[in-house]
Amino acid sequence: MAPTTETQEAYPMKGGDGLTSYSQNSTYQRGVIDAAKDVIVRAVEEKLDLTNPNINSCTSFRIADYGCSTGPNTFFGMQNVVDAVELKYHSIQQSPPEFQVFFNDHVDNDFNILFKSIPPSGQYFAAGVPGSFYQRVLPKASVHFAHCSYALHWLSKVPKEIQDKTSPAWNKGKIHYTGVEKHVTKAYFVQFQKDMDIFLKSRAEELVGGGLMVLLLPGLPKGETLFSKTGAGMLHALLGASLMDLAKTGAIDEDKVDSFNLPQYHPSAEDLKMVIEMNNCFSIESYGTLDHPMRHLPFDVKRTSAQVRAIMEAIVTDHFGSEILDQLFEIYTKKLTENYLVFEKEIRKDCDMFLVLKRKSY
Amino acid sequence: MAPTTETQEAYPMKGGDGLTSYSQNSTYQRGVIDAAKDVIVRAVEEKLDLTNPNINSCTSFRIADYGCSTGPNTFFGMQNVVDAVELKYHSIQQSPPEFQVFFNDHVDNDFNILFKSIPPSGQYFAAGVPGSFYQRVLPKASVHFAHCSYALHWLSKVPKEIQDKTSPAWNKGKIHYTGVEKHVTKAYFVQFQKDMDIFLKSRAEELVGGGLMVLLLPGLPKGETLFSKTGAGMLHALLGASLMDLAKTGAIDEDKVDSFNLPQYHPSAEDLKMVIEMNNCFSIESYGTLDHPMRHLPFDVKRTSAQVRAIMEAIVTDHFGSEILDQLFEIYTKKLTENYLVFEKEIRKDCDMFLVLKRKSY
Repeated sequence: MAPTTETQEAYPMKGGDGLTSYSQNSTYQRGVIDAAKDVIVRAVEEKLDLTNPNINSCTSFRIADYGCSTGPNTFFGMQNVVDAVELKYHSIQQSPPEFQVFFNDHVDNDFNILFKSIPPSGQYFAAGVPGSFYQRVLPKASVHFAHCSYALHWLSKVPKEIQDKTSPAWNKGKIHYTGVEKHVTKAYFVQFQKDMDIFLKSRAEELVGGGLMVLLLPGLPKGETLFSKTGAGMLHALLGASLMDLAKTGAIDEDKVDSFNLPQYHPSAEDLKMVIEMNNCFSIESYGTLDHPMRHLPFDVKRTSAQVRAIMEAIVTDHFGSEILDQLFEIYTKKLTENYLVFEKEIRKDCDMFLVLKRKSY
Repeated sequence: MAPTTETQEAYPMKGGDGLTSYSQNSTYQRGVIDAAKDVIVRAVEEKLDLTNPNINSCTSFRIADYGCSTGPNTFFGMQNVVDAVELKYHSIQQSPPEFQVFFNDHVDNDFNILFKSIPPSGQYFAAGVPGSFYQRVLPKASVHFAHCSYALHWLSKVPKEIQDKTSPAWNKGKIHYTGVEKHVTKAYFVQFQKDMDIFLKSRAEELVGGGLMVLLLPGLPKGETLFSKTGAGMLHALLGASLMDLAKTGAIDEDKVDSFNLPQYHPSAEDLKMVIEMNNCFSIESYGTLDHPMRHLPFDVKRTSAQVRAIMEAIVTDHFGSEILDQLFEIYTKKLTENYLVFEKEIRKDCDMFLVLKRKSY
């Protein structure tokens, strides 16, 4: 039972609510939540079975957001779930039970800011749950609806081989996989498989039979095999190039850049389906890609740079120290400007995936 | 249902883990927890009915600590409850269910420090619940064991009349009741009655029928009618006198001291029994006073001054600003030294009360 004590890598989104905070720089992720509203509404409408005894006998309907960060996006997502479930109860002339929402993230997440920002709608009771979602964080069969948005592409750690100079998967001069170097990509994929399986096993214990889980995450577009051709892949490659530029000025060691790698994997739909089917605790009720509203806007260099900084600041600081941040993101912004036309064209192909899963057997 | 949005006064214990923090200056409250261990063990042994369907059908055993502050005391208290319940299950050859512990306190409480300090025993799943306990903070019938230590003597607010110059209860020149001025004491008691009734009503909804609640709080010793004769009463009177000294130096306005009052009430056993019986949701299973280990130690001026500061810093700062803190507690320490003999003798009479309540009807 109970949480494991294995340490996990944790690079929380930038806390607080200042200009460079995640809470002020997560409009892209907000777009994901908005685009996913329909997914949630339809999942509840079509897939949530209120006659399931695990659900209709409950005194409270419990929802968990895994990897919630500091808000406000998690509040919009949770509100969408609560509204959809309430609507469903009303549609069968039943009063909904009370709602409890569990906001989960790493213990290093800024829960103080999260708690102070919870909207005072009074529609649910809020609780914060500290701990990596790559382990158990809630009791058995205690969750009716699980939600995880833009978090599962963060691996529990960088795969070891990537940082091993003697391995064919050593990732010299880059900070992420591109898809070209097969050994590197495979090491990342194997780590993703392991992590995702632990995630699914943990959630399988926490969800009631018949409980639903909505997963939203950035993925590899259909037909694309190279991560380096996606917007995210290009953003990461430019961050790596910016670090190499800094190394050339002597501000940081090139060795230090070689040993820096992002613990992220952006799976294809096939990757995801394979892991979920092998895990065998969940049925895939529906899946697809979201139509992100920002995909229809012109590419914005400043906003993108600020967003990448809010996400990457913790992990960059952990490896290089915080002194390099301003200079690094100056170079980065410059590189984004230089590549404006490429981004303006290519980033629209990026792909936000959704999956609606149901806990098997009840 | 759900939380009210009425604002409550909230003066969290000093956050962080620095030298003047509550977490470093709450050994007295730790003593309460240790002295209460027996109370918890016996409550579970004798009063927790594992054949109660509200308890034996649960997939997880849920414990809530209302007014948990930043730790570490809450962890010792919760560990005592978990250990006692596990022991009881083992004694009837049953494996205990998984445990979930809800740590509740005001939204201004430092939950980040709390979460980082949770001991990695892995015996329970932890969740933080932000919100005043003078309202609902958890879903209906979701708690099996409630705990509230050294928190219920904090009122939701200072009674209005105390601050009204035209009222006979106007508390000029003092910062708390002494027991001598009847109108003042009554105003405080009426506020305590109201708050305690809201607390009990809220917990009555949150606890399952047959669920237990252990309350620990400072009270008026048996036979004593004057709060001013108790250690806490004397500590508060000296804090008031120290503020008046500061006013005489011109550092603060005397009016400002007149309008400053502590939102605390230290009830007698009779006060408590009356409110609980009128509320009628709980049976009193046992009550009494704790034998606090520190009561047998010599009075320690420095430690006491640091403890009072950790508790009072937020409320003093809120009213007077933080500039006066160092000077105020210098004067305060001096006054404690001058009154050493009185404290050394009288503070031993102070009284920590415990109550074991059971949610009626199942």
